[in-house]
Amino acid sequence: MPARLGATNYGKSRVRLFRVVRDGARHHVAELTVDVALEGAYQAVHLEGDNAAVLPTDTMRNTVYAMAKEHPVTPIEAFGRTLVRHFLGATHHADGARVRIAAHGWDRITVGGTPHDHSFVRGSAERRMAYVSATRGGERYSAGIEDLEVLKTTRSSFEGYIKDRFTTLPETRDRIFSTVVSARWAYSAAPADFDAAFAAVRTAMLETFAGHDSKSVQQTLFAMGTAAIDAVPEVSEIRLSLPNRHYLLFDLARFGMENANEVFVPTSEPHGLIEATVVRE
Amino acid sequence: MPARLGATNYGKSRVRLFRVVRDGARHHVAELTVDVALEGAYQAVHLEGDNAAVLPTDTMRNTVYAMAKEHPVTPIEAFGRTLVRHFLGATHHADGARVRIAAHGWDRITVGGTPHDHSFVRGSAERRMAYVSATRGGERYSAGIEDLEVLKTTRSSFEGYIKDRFTTLPETRDRIFSTVVSARWAYSAAPADFDAAFAAVRTAMLETFAGHDSKSVQQTLFAMGTAAIDAVPEVSEIRLSLPNRHYLLFDLARFGMENANEVFVPTSEPHGLIEATVVRE
Amino acid sequence: MPARLGATNYGKSRVRLFRVVRDGARHHVAELTVDVALEGAYQAVHLEGDNAAVLPTDTMRNTVYAMAKEHPVTPIEAFGRTLVRHFLGATHHADGARVRIAAHGWDRITVGGTPHDHSFVRGSAERRMAYVSATRGGERYSAGIEDLEVLKTTRSSFEGYIKDRFTTLPETRDRIFSTVVSARWAYSAAPADFDAAFAAVRTAMLETFAGHDSKSVQQTLFAMGTAAIDAVPEVSEIRLSLPNRHYLLFDLARFGMENANEVFVPTSEPHGLIEATVVRE
Amino acid sequence: MPARLGATNYGKSRVRLFRVVRDGARHHVAELTVDVALEGAYQAVHLEGDNAAVLPTDTMRNTVYAMAKEHPVTPIEAFGRTLVRHFLGATHHADGARVRIAAHGWDRITVGGTPHDHSFVRGSAERRMAYVSATRGGERYSAGIEDLEVLKTTRSSFEGYIKDRFTTLPETRDRIFSTVVSARWAYSAAPADFDAAFAAVRTAMLETFAGHDSKSVQQTLFAMGTAAIDAVPEVSEIRLSLPNRHYLLFDLARFGMENANEVFVPTSEPHGLIEATVVRE
Repeated sequence: MPARLGATNYGKSRVRLFRVVRDGARHHVAELTVDVALEGAYQAVHLEGDNAAVLPTDTMRNTVYAMAKEHPVTPIEAFGRTLVRHFLGATHHADGARVRIAAHGWDRITVGGTPHDHSFVRGSAERRMAYVSATRGGERYSAGIEDLEVLKTTRSSFEGYIKDRFTTLPETRDRIFSTVVSARWAYSAAPADFDAAFAAVRTAMLETFAGHDSKSVQQTLFAMGTAAIDAVPEVSEIRLSLPNRHYLLFDLARFGMENANEVFVPTSEPHGLIEATVVRE
Repeated sequence: MPARLGATNYGKSRVRLFRVVRDGARHHVAELTVDVALEGAYQAVHLEGDNAAVLPTDTMRNTVYAMAKEHPVTPIEAFGRTLVRHFLGATHHADGARVRIAAHGWDRITVGGTPHDHSFVRGSAERRMAYVSATRGGERYSAGIEDLEVLKTTRSSFEGYIKDRFTTLPETRDRIFSTVVSARWAYSAAPADFDAAFAAVRTAMLETFAGHDSKSVQQTLFAMGTAAIDAVPEVSEIRLSLPNRHYLLFDLARFGMENANEVFVPTSEPHGLIEATVVRE
Repeated sequence: MPARLGATNYGKSRVRLFRVVRDGARHHVAELTVDVALEGAYQAVHLEGDNAAVLPTDTMRNTVYAMAKEHPVTPIEAFGRTLVRHFLGATHHADGARVRIAAHGWDRITVGGTPHDHSFVRGSAERRMAYVSATRGGERYSAGIEDLEVLKTTRSSFEGYIKDRFTTLPETRDRIFSTVVSARWAYSAAPADFDAAFAAVRTAMLETFAGHDSKSVQQTLFAMGTAAIDAVPEVSEIRLSLPNRHYLLFDLARFGMENANEVFVPTSEPHGLIEATVVRE
Repeated sequence: MPARLGATNYGKSRVRLFRVVRDGARHHVAELTVDVALEGAYQAVHLEGDNAAVLPTDTMRNTVYAMAKEHPVTPIEAFGRTLVRHFLGATHHADGARVRIAAHGWDRITVGGTPHDHSFVRGSAERRMAYVSATRGGERYSAGIEDLEVLKTTRSSFEGYIKDRFTTLPETRDRIFSTVVSARWAYSAAPADFDAAFAAVRTAMLETFAGHDSKSVQQTLFAMGTAAIDAVPEVSEIRLSLPNRHYLLFDLARFGMENANEVFVPTSEPHGLIEATVVRE
């Protein structure tokens, strides 16, 4: 045999779950997308077609719904813990289990000024994320945000960079800064309140974005990451991925008009992409 | 020639515009996607390749940005009027001009409890729409909503329908009702305040959805449309398109568990699709 | 009541079907997405919540699969006919039934130079469409193509158009012409061979696109439509929707380089949009 | 300062390029999407807002087009090499440069049985990928495939797996196997002919998929990876990611009909996900 098996994982992705909890007439809802993966001793599966070690991904799916009946699904980190512990117990062939949960927002509809008991309207595309991984030795927790779109109309400059033969970008002291925050942070230990920890990191990043006098996306990224680490003691590090979505100043001078940072063309591609990890000292 | 030219239209689609208006330190923003189309006497263009009557779509694009400098872009119906009037003036070959504008939501970031002056976070995917069409005789206005996702966890039943050989759906007095509202309504005359009219229709539809004891999507649709017509005198008719996005009760009985409308599987396809027009008497 | 019910329709959308037909070891496959809609006397459903006239959309879904077992699913027009006839028979409340079918392409994998018996690779995103509608008086057939992307690197010009204050586009005798064909044509009578008719229209449009010396998208559109009408006697009219996807010449002169129509930036938005109907005389 | 900077990278993503090469009347086209990223000593950028070390991502974009004029863009690995070498030369602050190139397929339109000189139709969504990374010490090459959809209607079984309380999946000796191949393989050294190496890996994977008697996705994955390694001596390892897209047998027994693997429901979510690396011994 000229080839051997390297790292493997298998599981079920995009298991969609909606959970209703009734507190009298007041209904609470959670809509989640769950991914489950196992890692382990799966040599015979891959090489010999022997499925004796395989917990089917269909069973993983069923299990997600059964666990959602018997255990809380929020905070999502706790539901992730329920799942990884179950799956490691369900098969001794697995050395590790990983669960990724995305929470999709539903806000209560306001009726006559009051949030309604059982009717909801979709929030933004932003998703709260939880990543729980377990080995036989214990669990690890990370959390994150995906698709949090933010924009500021001033307090962003970009100057003093390298110029070469292919430079055409003018330096600017005032531009639009638009990005879609993807962040993932690791907890050195499970915080006492996962919801509060998430909210604190989110607020720290948003307020830093808003207040920062940005000299570059890179500088703002580091400030946001530092603020996140400052906000929650259990955050050991945070990885931020910030596309720079360009809002181009439309050239109105050709029509004898001035454009004092008033009229822009939002663009999707190409985009800058700035990524860095900020680590607690 | 075995063929003749029927109805035609041409224009520019997906012109993306971002407009900043500064009120001192307070910045107001609008992000729009604009589609422009002309109709008219374009026989020679299609049959002979004679472009003398063609206002290029590239010029339409430039014009959108120029008009956004010189005229308000909100309410979007007013910007649509600016555009259709301009385009009919720009080419006598056009008999009609149509503009479709989608407004994408940006909310202010809250910093220390206060909405920020110049920093914003993306709202939901919901889009406010304006449709303005003009002929040499005048303008017509419609408005709409796209991708307004709503869900209620009770007060929705479905019973008493036709049963045949292929029926498997059980009747239910309590199900989840989830839909994505697409609505478009015509104004018999321009309302005095387009923003207020839009808000009134939106609120009427949301509150009706929340409060209605639904016997079918069809019945709720009619109630929502009626509420919209009641809310704004200038609304002459409204077309609603309501997909029925099925949230399926997961079968936990196989595992010896009860599922008292607690655990559901959200699905995207297939979906029901209920469409109707409600007309003012 | 201030409002009355206007036009309505309801049904099931995005019913996904995969059908295997075995000819010994040789397997034939069809992957379809089916939309079903009924129109009729549904006043009581909408106004009173009386579902006695409602054939549930869930039953429509079941029926699609049952009919796919008992009847051929290709040509898709014939399957559409099976479905509309069934649904009109299933409920006397319906005045009309409409079915829309999209066929997704699978090509055989070539193994050792030979097309494989039961293994397939996905084709392009192009979809063959069928639209069958029925009333109590009979059926009507249309067919179409969606997402047929084509491009030519020369033999496309655009000159002689209107110039005004907002014109910046230079005239050109040689540009890239890239579009995504959406076409829908009506048959005055069912052709003897739906597959052959579809193939003839598709070939006529592709060959015309390739061979045409284009003075505008409008002119090429009319030529393609005329070719389709010439190709199949039963085609009574055809509607074409051709976005003009701009491939922009990148300005290399700033770097002291020439760009002799060699280096382009493909763009998605904004795009021109040219639409017209060509009608058999 | 409580935080320090960890790993960083920055660059430009989704730079879309279309290149035409004319061989007399015969035109050759390439449509690429290019991502560029640099890694290096960017401490001052992130912490102090000092941009002296920053080659702007806008310049990266310009450079891609300029290099596409002066150098071949195919094979895409060679274009990647051109780019990484340029960027390392353009800034001594970078320790490493990475380029990712996706090639989008255009096939010639057949006119009267002959492939046309300058007119093209889009191929499938499958994309050929190249990944070139460079440090001051040299370059590394990987290649890959994205979105290669394949399906087989038989010769796929799944039996002998773990059963537990949550198992509902029946064992089967004959099911549909549908996946979307994502593969990425590393070259230990640049092959003499990148195009031939790519084609050999692709053919090996497709023919293995078609011919394999599959006892699990895992087993077929390993067979495909092994075939790739067998096919090209420079392939040192290959990572495969194979979603198991379930085509569910529709339950026709409820209607008194048999379903002998004839009528299926294609689904998108949830899906299995099987991933593994196969390594040359």
